Amino acid sequence: MPELRKDPIIGRWVIISTERGKRPTDFASVPPTKKSNFCPFCYGNETKTPPEVYALREPGTEKDTPGWRVRVVPNKFPALQIEGEINRQGEGIYDKMNGIGAHEVIIETPDHNKTISDLDEDYIADVLSTYRERIIDLKKDRRFKYIVVFKNHGEAAGASLEHTHTQLVAMPIIPKRVSEEIEGARKYYDFKERCIFCDIVAQEIHDDVRVVSANESFLAIEPFAARFPFETLILPKTHEPAFEEIERNEIMHLARLLKEILSKINAALNNPPYNFILHTLPLQGNNRNWYHWHLEIMPKLTKVAGFEWGSGFYINPTAPEEAARYLREINLPSLQT
Amino acid sequence: MPELRKDPIIGRWVIISTERGKRPTDFASVPPTKKSNFCPFCYGNETKTPPEVYALREPGTEKDTPGWRVRVVPNKFPALQIEGEINRQGEGIYDKMNGIGAHEVIIETPDHNKTISDLDEDYIADVLSTYRERIIDLKKDRRFKYIVVFKNHGEAAGASLEHTHTQLVAMPIIPKRVSEEIEGARKYYDFKERCIFCDIVAQEIHDDVRVVSANESFLAIEPFAARFPFETLILPKTHEPAFEEIERNEIMHLARLLKEILSKINAALNNPPYNFILHTLPLQGNNRNWYHWHLEIMPKLTKVAGFEWGSGFYINPTAPEEAARYLREINLPSLQT
Repeated sequence: MPELRKDPIIGRWVIISTERGKRPTDFASVPPTKKSNFCPFCYGNETKTPPEVYALREPGTEKDTPGWRVRVVPNKFPALQIEGEINRQGEGIYDKMNGIGAHEVIIETPDHNKTISDLDEDYIADVLSTYRERIIDLKKDRRFKYIVVFKNHGEAAGASLEHTHTQLVAMPIIPKRVSEEIEGARKYYDFKERCIFCDIVAQEIHDDVRVVSANESFLAIEPFAARFPFETLILPKTHEPAFEEIERNEIMHLARLLKEILSKINAALNNPPYNFILHTLPLQGNNRNWYHWHLEIMPKLTKVAGFEWGSGFYINPTAPEEAARYLREINLPSLQT
Repeated sequence: MPELRKDPIIGRWVIISTERGKRPTDFASVPPTKKSNFCPFCYGNETKTPPEVYALREPGTEKDTPGWRVRVVPNKFPALQIEGEINRQGEGIYDKMNGIGAHEVIIETPDHNKTISDLDEDYIADVLSTYRERIIDLKKDRRFKYIVVFKNHGEAAGASLEHTHTQLVAMPIIPKRVSEEIEGARKYYDFKERCIFCDIVAQEIHDDVRVVSANESFLAIEPFAARFPFETLILPKTHEPAFEEIERNEIMHLARLLKEILSKINAALNNPPYNFILHTLPLQGNNRNWYHWHLEIMPKLTKVAGFEWGSGFYINPTAPEEAARYLREINLPSLQT
């Protein structure tokens, strides 16, 4: 059973994942990754993954067989385990709990050679709907306090399998970055009685120097205090606390903007590795007035060194205004926008 | 002039370093680093760095010439600029200030082929004394609120020059990780009227499962909620808020323990890239009762992916107890401990 442990000083929870346990000797020399021809996410290999928990399928096709468009399976090497009850314990001054949670993989397409931004807008909308469906389903489990949906694209961004996929982790705690956002947004709300994200949307549209693109429902910006070059934020233009409350027409708008932004990043930066992560409302909370979901996209371009790790203080060598201008000016002729 | 910008939601300051400015095209393809034979940190090349601000030298040798043991120079490409007055400004809902600060490089030895752990204990003590002297000197500048001393060892850990060196950044803000530690430690102090770091020292010595080594003045442990495999903390056994108050005999003890820990990490993990960073008391603060300086050592073994970046929630595949046991059991026959 993995263990959740809380940093006694700053309150950050970490997973000590003994099941995935690496012995010291595993790190001693990193062998070059062998590219195997076998891919568990391709058609015909459905029995090589744990049984699917959700799929969008052609009518008449069977669970765990080909015929799916989008398929969700539990992670074969889960960071958290689904069975058991939460059990918080002390250990002297330290706090821990057993590592209960869900860890799922959303396989975005059976096509081994496509990335999410290669898919049609309709197809991306199906992937985003799948995120929503899985959140709605997992939300029923009262052991979970938060669900993180994230994507590692490219080996340097942490992807261990090439075939495009998104991961989802439902967990019994609220991760530190999200608590910090909620707390910061709450302080702002206490003072202003407005959502800070809504104010950011208003100011960015007004200033119009960090906007990359926008459509009916969504805005894509380079954040004012971006940590990384080309860090990009997509957020709903109106106040929307929880991603899973997104409506069908909004999903289409989000799919269109996400495809555009990823395509621009690919064009500007020569298909860089990247991560994206969804920040949404905690599952059991009353933060609806001041929290506003958003998607963070982080191309992996710079090495993060000791200074950043140890201080939480980042040096970004590209001004967000410059990154925004550069992405704005990229023409994507093939894109129908 | 670089700019400091504050994240409006979570309050994290970042440096937008326009001077070091990278244009988007700089990221488009990363050329393999060309190893040049020229090293600005070697004897004879003293005029290729900015003029030295401090050095330990053989008697009779001149500034900016050979003859030094340890030499400190301003960073040629500083993240912050030394000249100017702090000027805080708003920009709508956003906050910024001009990027005032000092950015120095501590060249630990003229020997191009040694790393810090190859140096004798006496020599490491000289390097550590140099950290102290620079902090004491820069502390006089009332514009600065914090000084970070950190080391990037190896290219994967962010070192851009091979010749062993440490960096120092004096800044007009307190970095986020440090504020969080102070705030967490203050809450504990409010509740217990004890320093949490002192309590950690006591519990770790008592439990004796995460201790790697110890001597008269210092303890080296794998932290209970370590983010990374083999993350190691060195801290004074008694309550010491500020690194620069360290005494000569303690510097010797620290040098001995640091050499031992780095040598063990090198032996266990085949000379991995690593970072270390000093966390010490802010320059103008009244946190003496609850803050306790420490040195964080982070070998760079795992890829940090979107999940960690975006959530602040880490998955550590090696239990700290196992890492501690492994490091404890390594014999370093050449070390006189």
